Amino acid sequence: MFSHQKYEKKFYLPPVISYDWVKKESIEKAPVWCSVDLRDGNQALPIPMTLQEKLEMYQMLLEIGFKEIEVAFPAASETDYQFLRTLIENKMIPEDVTIQVITQAREHIIRRTFEALDGVPKAIVHLYNSTSEAQRRQVFHKSKEDIKKLAVDGARLFKKLAEETMGDFYFQYSPESFPGTEVDYALDICNSVLEIWKPAPNHKANINIPTTVENAMPHIYASQLEYINNNLLDRDSVVLSIHPHNDRGCGVCDAEYGILAGAQRVEGTLFGNGERTGNVDLITVAMNLYTQGVDPELNFSNMNQICDTYKRLTKMSISERQPYSGSLVFTAFSGSHQDAISKGMKYREQEKMQKWDVPYIPVDPSDLGRNYETDVIRINSQSGKGGIGYILENAYGIHMPYRMNEEFGYFVKKVSDRDSKELSTEEIYQLFRQQYVEYFPAFQIQSIKVNVEEANEAFLTILQDDNTIGVKGHGAGSLDAISNALKKHFSVEYDLEVYEEHSMGADSSALASAYIGIQKNGKQYWGVGINRDIIKASAFALAIAMNRLLGEFSG
Amino acid sequence: MFSHQKYEKKFYLPPVISYDWVKKESIEKAPVWCSVDLRDGNQALPIPMTLQEKLEMYQMLLEIGFKEIEVAFPAASETDYQFLRTLIENKMIPEDVTIQVITQAREHIIRRTFEALDGVPKAIVHLYNSTSEAQRRQVFHKSKEDIKKLAVDGARLFKKLAEETMGDFYFQYSPESFPGTEVDYALDICNSVLEIWKPAPNHKANINIPTTVENAMPHIYASQLEYINNNLLDRDSVVLSIHPHNDRGCGVCDAEYGILAGAQRVEGTLFGNGERTGNVDLITVAMNLYTQGVDPELNFSNMNQICDTYKRLTKMSISERQPYSGSLVFTAFSGSHQDAISKGMKYREQEKMQKWDVPYIPVDPSDLGRNYETDVIRINSQSGKGGIGYILENAYGIHMPYRMNEEFGYFVKKVSDRDSKELSTEEIYQLFRQQYVEYFPAFQIQSIKVNVEEANEAFLTILQDDNTIGVKGHGAGSLDAISNALKKHFSVEYDLEVYEEHSMGADSSALASAYIGIQKNGKQYWGVGINRDIIKASAFALAIAMNRLLGEFSG
Repeated sequence: MFSHQKYEKKFYLPPVISYDWVKKESIEKAPVWCSVDLRDGNQALPIPMTLQEKLEMYQMLLEIGFKEIEVAFPAASETDYQFLRTLIENKMIPEDVTIQVITQAREHIIRRTFEALDGVPKAIVHLYNSTSEAQRRQVFHKSKEDIKKLAVDGARLFKKLAEETMGDFYFQYSPESFPGTEVDYALDICNSVLEIWKPAPNHKANINIPTTVENAMPHIYASQLEYINNNLLDRDSVVLSIHPHNDRGCGVCDAEYGILAGAQRVEGTLFGNGERTGNVDLITVAMNLYTQGVDPELNFSNMNQICDTYKRLTKMSISERQPYSGSLVFTAFSGSHQDAISKGMKYREQEKMQKWDVPYIPVDPSDLGRNYETDVIRINSQSGKGGIGYILENAYGIHMPYRMNEEFGYFVKKVSDRDSKELSTEEIYQLFRQQYVEYFPAFQIQSIKVNVEEANEAFLTILQDDNTIGVKGHGAGSLDAISNALKKHFSVEYDLEVYEEHSMGADSSALASAYIGIQKNGKQYWGVGINRDIIKASAFALAIAMNRLLGEFSG
Repeated sequence: MFSHQKYEKKFYLPPVISYDWVKKESIEKAPVWCSVDLRDGNQALPIPMTLQEKLEMYQMLLEIGFKEIEVAFPAASETDYQFLRTLIENKMIPEDVTIQVITQAREHIIRRTFEALDGVPKAIVHLYNSTSEAQRRQVFHKSKEDIKKLAVDGARLFKKLAEETMGDFYFQYSPESFPGTEVDYALDICNSVLEIWKPAPNHKANINIPTTVENAMPHIYASQLEYINNNLLDRDSVVLSIHPHNDRGCGVCDAEYGILAGAQRVEGTLFGNGERTGNVDLITVAMNLYTQGVDPELNFSNMNQICDTYKRLTKMSISERQPYSGSLVFTAFSGSHQDAISKGMKYREQEKMQKWDVPYIPVDPSDLGRNYETDVIRINSQSGKGGIGYILENAYGIHMPYRMNEEFGYFVKKVSDRDSKELSTEEIYQLFRQQYVEYFPAFQIQSIKVNVEEANEAFLTILQDDNTIGVKGHGAGSLDAISNALKKHFSVEYDLEVYEEHSMGADSSALASAYIGIQKNGKQYWGVGINRDIIKASAFALAIAMNRLLGEFSG
C-alpha cells in the first residue's frame, strides 16, 4: 500500500553540530579518487565482469588517471581472487598506483584476503563491518560492544597478517551502514581501530565513511563528517575518505559536501554504477571541479570511448541525461536556446574569448571529444530559426539572410511537427535545396550570356513548358539586366530587396552562394543559387525567387 | 583540448548571506508540485509528443495527483497551441487543477498566448525573459535596464490582456538564466514585476527562480533563494517557486534546499526529463519525503505502469539506477546485503514491525508495485547463501538447514561465476533439484514398507546397477530402520547429524520436504526428499545423502 505513515526519519545527528563546511563556496582542489568500479560496481551487475573484462576495465581506469583502485573482494569470489593474483603475478600495477581490496571483519575471510595479497608491491586493505542499529538488532543480534569488538579484532589480525605477508600494506576501515549508526558510536569504533593500527603521517590509515544507504539530505551527512573530522584520533595520520551512494539522488552532493566538511578522498564509480541506485558518479564530481577551473586530476577527453567500453563491459546503459556523459546533455532542441547558443558561439569566436561562457552549454563539448555539428543543435518541432541557421552554416557553409532564415525556420518546424520526428542535418539541407535551390515549377535557366562591355546586356535561354526560349534585357549591371529580361518575358514586376552572395570556401575556385529576396505587394520570395560562377549563382537565385512569385501571380 | 583552465566559477553570491535553511533537518510538508513534462520536458525530446500523446501524458499526470501542470508554450508550436485549445474546448481541466502556459516577454508572443487561453476556467500564465550577464552581453546586446524593461513591459501587457480575455488568470514570472544573473538584480526585476501585478494574499503571483543551467553547489542556490525569500515585495501575496535543472547532478538537492530556504512550489518532471541533463526528477523529491514519513501528495503506487507509459510516450529510457523507479534500485546481488535483507524481512514479519527499516532497502518495493520475488534478491557470482536461501524459501517453500544452505550457496556462486551469468529463480531451483533431490548415481529407492508395530522394521526395494534388490533393517524408529538397512547393504558407516522435515503447504495433504545431513570423517553429505508421505520424504532424502557419500567411499 502506498502510505508514507510506514516510514520515519532514521538518521542520527552528531552530538555537536557545526556548519563550517557551508561557508565554503566551492572546492579548491581535487580529492584523492578511488575507483570502486571493479568491486562495488561489479558486484551490482546482473552479469559481473569476467577476469578478462575486469582487466580491460582496469586498463581504462588507469588511462583515465586513477591512482587508487579497489580491485577485488578476493575472499568472496573466485574471479576476484584470480584477478588480484593476475595483477600481482603479471606485475600489472604501475608504481604510482595503489590497489585496494576489501574484506569483512571475519577471521577466515581476512586470512584468505592476505593470502591473495601475497607479494603485492603496495596495497590498501579495506576492513569493514556493519555498525547500524538496525543491523545490530535484526541481523547480528549483537550489542554495540560486540560489534566494536569485531572491528577491533579484525584490525588486530590485519596488523599481524600484514607483518607476515610480502608487501607494503596500508589499512582502511569503514563502519558500514554508517547512515543508520549513532555518529559518536561510529567515531568510537573508528578511533578504537586507529588505536590498534597506530598510523603515522608518513604511513597513514584511511577512515572511510560510507552512505551505504542514503537516508538524509547531504547537509546532514556533511555535519556528521565535520564532527568526525574534528574528533578523529591522530588526524594528521589519517586520510578521511567518503563513499557515497545515491538512494535519494544526492550522491554527488554528498561527495561535494563531504569534501567541504574535511574528506580528502572519494570512493565511487564511473557513471554511478553500484548497488541499487549506485555509487556516486566520479565523472560528475570531477567534471564539476573542471568546469569551475579546478584540475580534476582525471582525464575524460575520450568520453565517447569511455562510454562505449563501459557499456560493453558492464552491459549497463548510460542515461541520455547523465551529466557530462549522456547522449543528450549538450543538445538544445528549443528555439530560444539554439538562438542563444548560436549567438554565443559567434561571440566567442569574434571576441576570441579565453574563458568558456556560452549560454546553455556549461562545458565545451569538444573537451570531452563530443561533436559540435551532431551533438549541440538538433532540430525538431520545438526548434527555431537560430538553430536551423546554425546547422546550415556549420555543416554546409550556407548563410541565410535573416528574413529567409525566419521563413525557412517556420517551414522546418512545420515539417517536423507534421511528421513527428527529429530532422537530421542532411534532411534539413535537402529541405533547403528543395525550397530554394531546386524549385522550378515555372521555368529554369539553361544558359546565360552577359555582355558587360556593351551596356550590360544579358541573353538567357530558359526552359519553360518543355520549350527552350531565348530572352534578353538591359540594365544597370549584370544582375539588373538578367532581372529585366525575365521581368519582360513573364510580364511581372517586383523589387529586388535582398541580394547577398559569398564564397563557400577559401579560394577563388570555391563555390559561391547567392541569396536573393524579391518583393511584391509586401511579400518576400526567396531563392538561392550555388555555382562556381558568381553571375550564374545570382541568376539561379533570382530564377528560384521568381518561380516562387510566379506561382502566386501568373495566369 | 581537455583543460580546466578554460573555466572559472561564474555564480553570484547574494549581497547578504544567511544560513537559516541549513539548520533545518528535513522537509516537513510537500511543496506545491508543478509538472512541466508537457512543456520543458517535451521540448527536450528528439521526438516531441503528438497531441494524442500529450493528452495521454496529461491524463497520467492527473492520475498521479498533480494539481498544477504547465501544458504548453502555445505561441511556439502548433501542436502546443492545439493541445491547449483541446483541453479548454473539451473541458478537460478538473476543477482542482490549474494549467500553466509559458511565454517569452515579447509582445506578439504574449498576445498569441492569451488568444490561445481564451475561455480557460483558470490558468497560470508564465512570463520569462533571460537576465544573465552572459546573455545580456552575447545574445541581446542590452543593458540591465533594457532587460528589466522587457520584463516590466511584458508584465503590463499581461495585466491588460488578462482583463480582456475570458478566464481567471494567475501570473508567474521567471528571471531565466538566473544562475548567471546578479542576485540583487534578479530580485529587483522580480519586485518590479510584482509592483505591476499587485498580487494579493487571495490571488497570489508566482515568482519562479530557475537553475536554468546548474553552475554551483546547491548551498549557493539555497543562500541565493533565502536572500530572495527575505527580500521579496508582498511576500504574503507571492508563491516562491523553484525550477531546478541538473547539469551538475544536484537537481534533487537544489529542490530540497530551495524548499528549506523558503520555496513553496517546485517545477520539475517525471524521471528528470528535460533539456540536457534534465529538470529535477519530481518522483525522487516526492519519494524522499515519503520515506521520511511525509505525505508527498503524489501517488506512485503504480510505478511500473508510469515507467512504461513514460517510455512509450517520450521514447526516452529510464536508467536502471534512477532512484525509486529504476529496474535495479531494489535489487541486491551481493551476498552480505542479501543475507541482511533476508534476516531483516524475517525480523519484520516475526516482530510485526509497523515502521519500515529493512537493511539495504530504503523503501518497501511493494509500495511502488514492485515485486519482492523478482526484484529484490537476484543471484549472480557475487551472491551468497542468504540470498539463495531466501529465493528458494520464498518461491518454493524450501527451508535448507544452515550448513546445507552454505554448501549450496558456494555451488550456485561457482556456476554463476563459471558461466558469467545471472541465474533465474527457476535455474536455481533446478540446480537444487539436480544436487539434492534427483541425484542417484549409486542407487535409488523404489519402494518402502515400514512395520512400525513390530520393532520398527523397514523393507526397501532399491534399484542398483539396473537390478532391483530387496534390503531390510531394524532400528529405534522408522528412519533409523531404513538407515540401518542401507548401511548394512552398502557396508558403510556414518552419523545422521541433521534431520529436518516440514510441510510445504498449510494442510495435511501438502507436500513435505525432508533435509538430511549425514557425516563421515568430518564431512557432511546432504539430501532432500519431497513427497506427500513424510516417511518417503525422509527415506528419499537419506538415499540422496548416501548417494553423495558412496561416491567418495564406495569401491
